[in-house]
Amino acid sequence: MAKVAGWIFAQGGNILHADQHRDAEETVFFQRVEWSQPGEATDVRGVAASFEGMARQELGMNCRATISNEKTRVGMLVSKIPHCLQDLALRFKRGEMRGELNCVVSNHPDLREFCESMRLSFHHVEVKPDGKAEAEERQLEIFKSQKVDLIVLARYMQMLSQRFLTEAGVPVINIHHSFLPAFAGRRPYHQAYARGVKIIGATAHYVTAILDQGPIIAQDVVRISHRHTVEDLIRKGQDLEQAVFARAIRSHLEHRVLIYKNKTVVFD
Amino acid sequence: MAKVAGWIFAQGGNILHADQHRDAEETVFFQRVEWSQPGEATDVRGVAASFEGMARQELGMNCRATISNEKTRVGMLVSKIPHCLQDLALRFKRGEMRGELNCVVSNHPDLREFCESMRLSFHHVEVKPDGKAEAEERQLEIFKSQKVDLIVLARYMQMLSQRFLTEAGVPVINIHHSFLPAFAGRRPYHQAYARGVKIIGATAHYVTAILDQGPIIAQDVVRISHRHTVEDLIRKGQDLEQAVFARAIRSHLEHRVLIYKNKTVVFD
Amino acid sequence: MAKVAGWIFAQGGNILHADQHRDAEETVFFQRVEWSQPGEATDVRGVAASFEGMARQELGMNCRATISNEKTRVGMLVSKIPHCLQDLALRFKRGEMRGELNCVVSNHPDLREFCESMRLSFHHVEVKPDGKAEAEERQLEIFKSQKVDLIVLARYMQMLSQRFLTEAGVPVINIHHSFLPAFAGRRPYHQAYARGVKIIGATAHYVTAILDQGPIIAQDVVRISHRHTVEDLIRKGQDLEQAVFARAIRSHLEHRVLIYKNKTVVFD
Amino acid sequence: MAKVAGWIFAQGGNILHADQHRDAEETVFFQRVEWSQPGEATDVRGVAASFEGMARQELGMNCRATISNEKTRVGMLVSKIPHCLQDLALRFKRGEMRGELNCVVSNHPDLREFCESMRLSFHHVEVKPDGKAEAEERQLEIFKSQKVDLIVLARYMQMLSQRFLTEAGVPVINIHHSFLPAFAGRRPYHQAYARGVKIIGATAHYVTAILDQGPIIAQDVVRISHRHTVEDLIRKGQDLEQAVFARAIRSHLEHRVLIYKNKTVVFD
Repeated sequence: MAKVAGWIFAQGGNILHADQHRDAEETVFFQRVEWSQPGEATDVRGVAASFEGMARQELGMNCRATISNEKTRVGMLVSKIPHCLQDLALRFKRGEMRGELNCVVSNHPDLREFCESMRLSFHHVEVKPDGKAEAEERQLEIFKSQKVDLIVLARYMQMLSQRFLTEAGVPVINIHHSFLPAFAGRRPYHQAYARGVKIIGATAHYVTAILDQGPIIAQDVVRISHRHTVEDLIRKGQDLEQAVFARAIRSHLEHRVLIYKNKTVVFD
Repeated sequence: MAKVAGWIFAQGGNILHADQHRDAEETVFFQRVEWSQPGEATDVRGVAASFEGMARQELGMNCRATISNEKTRVGMLVSKIPHCLQDLALRFKRGEMRGELNCVVSNHPDLREFCESMRLSFHHVEVKPDGKAEAEERQLEIFKSQKVDLIVLARYMQMLSQRFLTEAGVPVINIHHSFLPAFAGRRPYHQAYARGVKIIGATAHYVTAILDQGPIIAQDVVRISHRHTVEDLIRKGQDLEQAVFARAIRSHLEHRVLIYKNKTVVFD
Repeated sequence: MAKVAGWIFAQGGNILHADQHRDAEETVFFQRVEWSQPGEATDVRGVAASFEGMARQELGMNCRATISNEKTRVGMLVSKIPHCLQDLALRFKRGEMRGELNCVVSNHPDLREFCESMRLSFHHVEVKPDGKAEAEERQLEIFKSQKVDLIVLARYMQMLSQRFLTEAGVPVINIHHSFLPAFAGRRPYHQAYARGVKIIGATAHYVTAILDQGPIIAQDVVRISHRHTVEDLIRKGQDLEQAVFARAIRSHLEHRVLIYKNKTVVFD
Repeated sequence: MAKVAGWIFAQGGNILHADQHRDAEETVFFQRVEWSQPGEATDVRGVAASFEGMARQELGMNCRATISNEKTRVGMLVSKIPHCLQDLALRFKRGEMRGELNCVVSNHPDLREFCESMRLSFHHVEVKPDGKAEAEERQLEIFKSQKVDLIVLARYMQMLSQRFLTEAGVPVINIHHSFLPAFAGRRPYHQAYARGVKIIGATAHYVTAILDQGPIIAQDVVRISHRHTVEDLIRKGQDLEQAVFARAIRSHLEHRVLIYKNKTVVFD
């Protein structure tokens, strides 16, 4: 901490926020520092690069320095359910998110009309029962050509292969419609209804090759009762899903999320 | 509904609260009616008995009529962890619960002092590794002699056998320190910490022979973050546990809980 | 209750939901019954009308019987802030609300583009400092010509006169960006920040002539801390506002809200 | 930050937690550092004292350095309502709080029995209508003789004079049974019921001479509906009160609360 603060001070930077976390059990130390750095864009990039070098060599830390006003490019995969796409598209449009939503790829044509009304680039890539590999190829092509830095799954109803995740080479965030680890897998609202829980939830997490097992970024819950049918659970859950999904993506875009040991540190 | 309301009206009763629930999928109908009935205690018991008869014969309903000012007798099983016992003992003492806490049985002597300071009858029944059956026998003796109508497990760290549950012949309510069905079984806070969830919970449920699988009565949750150690989770969780446990027991004692299909209807 | 249930049964109706409330202090009784009634549309309207007559004459109750598949027509007033309008427009479009959003009237032209992209009829009615009466006249003309049954204020930044409310002759629902009665009036997030509260909220209520004093339909809150600036409060609050606003409007459109004594009964 | 971290490092200390806050509007900087310092008790006290000196002179900061294993002594004022006293007494007894509850002073004798059963020193100081000044004198005597560092008002139903606050010379924490600033003053649950709010709350705050206007430390809320009577609000509210009160006192005892401009920074 002393060295980091001293280094920034010496470069003429001004620390705006600093947050640390020490995992005593794992003896890992995490730090997030946000500072304003006077100078031209190229100077700032230079400072960022030398900070990364210093942190690695002098402090032995993994380090990533990003420039706040360089926007992250986001690609989206979606199926037919519209609410997460629509809510997110409007948040990007209103300027609430530190990033740009560059393209939407869907295995169904249903959401084309909405995307076009929002002037969002929409790509229909059909996923045939025996054509998943080709479809993923095509999806990757689109995301690569758009140079996306993040892929978000806005209720995308297909499993992604490990190959896709490796090739994509960027983080992938999914919204799952349950309070994980409860009710992983298919039809979580039906599972919740059958079990008779009194609270349902939604979970945004990074995608790994194991279904619904990746590091959790954000979760939220809402109370239900015996009065609520499965349809009520779905409707109430959708409000949760879009709120939790947006919150997780915002944290990611503001570089507040660090991953370790299948868990996250979220510096909110 | 029409017949029930009409019958009560004809007996000179005055409906205070009425609540219904129809499970459309299962085509079951539930009703809870609370009414004031003028007359002597014996008259009131007579009216209750004829109501039960009418409901069964004329309406083909399962029915239980109870008298609000006849207090339910409660027995408790506890181990060493004090907070649920202490919170509940004080709630009974302050008159918040429609019932009486009649006896506390523990497999450890640690909580005797507190119980005695509260003038609560305390029984130490040791559970030896190979003596569970005898211990359960002794526990049942105590509960039977106290004529308890409900047994509550205030962080009791032993599984109860099916035989115990059958012999006891009264409902048993447990508090589990996780948001079920997530983290059933042992050391749920450690499990939650390892999984990196952002919210933890507590669940009060009726005990069945299958561990942590009985009908859920009440649940609640609290937000956590990477800053919290397992010890923090335990401390925050304890506040949840005692609140959820008390809420579930209160609902039960006010006869607001109906069980069906491993779920509950809670008429709050 | 007995008479209402009996009457419906006699007409061949089938009760789906029934809810009652007795305010013991005010000795008022409230009931909401939802039933399916076989027959043609005209028959159903006839049954509804005779139910109203029966309830008034035989039971001495105020009564309103509505037909669930006749959609309520909704008009909206909005200024420049887009999120409540956008969220609501999409909810109507997705068919989540039992009603139709028929027209949007704004004192600014900013939201025309969005409305047109959604094929929502948009009317710009400027409100000049000394021209409020004329503007309200024009707004009323539009709402009357659209035959709206409900007006919603989606962050509309002008006070409505008592004359407007009387002339409109339909309920008006407003979303206020604080947890009323705390921080009524202007700039509630700035007020909340200055007071140092640890939780902020949003409130949907029926509009009366007294600012922010009408019957409350729905409220919700979110935790904040010293880390949050006024801008953070505004951003977090906007998520609350749209959720609470949608919830209140849905309850109203499903005829679940009864008003009495400047309070509401919401049969959820 | 750099200097503080460097100084501790140079003394052989090991930083366990560090938290900062910068109020951009007020241009104030806050920091809380928790470190382990090897050495004897006297050495540690010496290091704490030199840290305070360094912070004041070299950094121009207000500074308070406390030793974690020196327990804060707490005095309590209470009237007749038992739940906050009882909950807190048990938390101290269970060792959950970093401090000691040294004495309870009440204007009524009702809670003597409970305190004695817990071996808590209890003092009855009657407050006669025209004898407030004398009563405060006597209360101060008790707190001074017990050398308390903190006074907590566990539902104490009397206003304290400015003179009392000044003479006491230690912080005073109160629990108010509403979501401040809503429903300050008397009978907040009755006020909340009359206004028809859908959520009620509780607020723990430092006491100043102006009723219910001091810096807020912690707040929490719970949902209510038209079904709840004033008595229900009181019962639900009591659970909130004891939870919020305990949370605020714990934060204070762990030296996590900084006051400025009638607000608090709580480093949780």
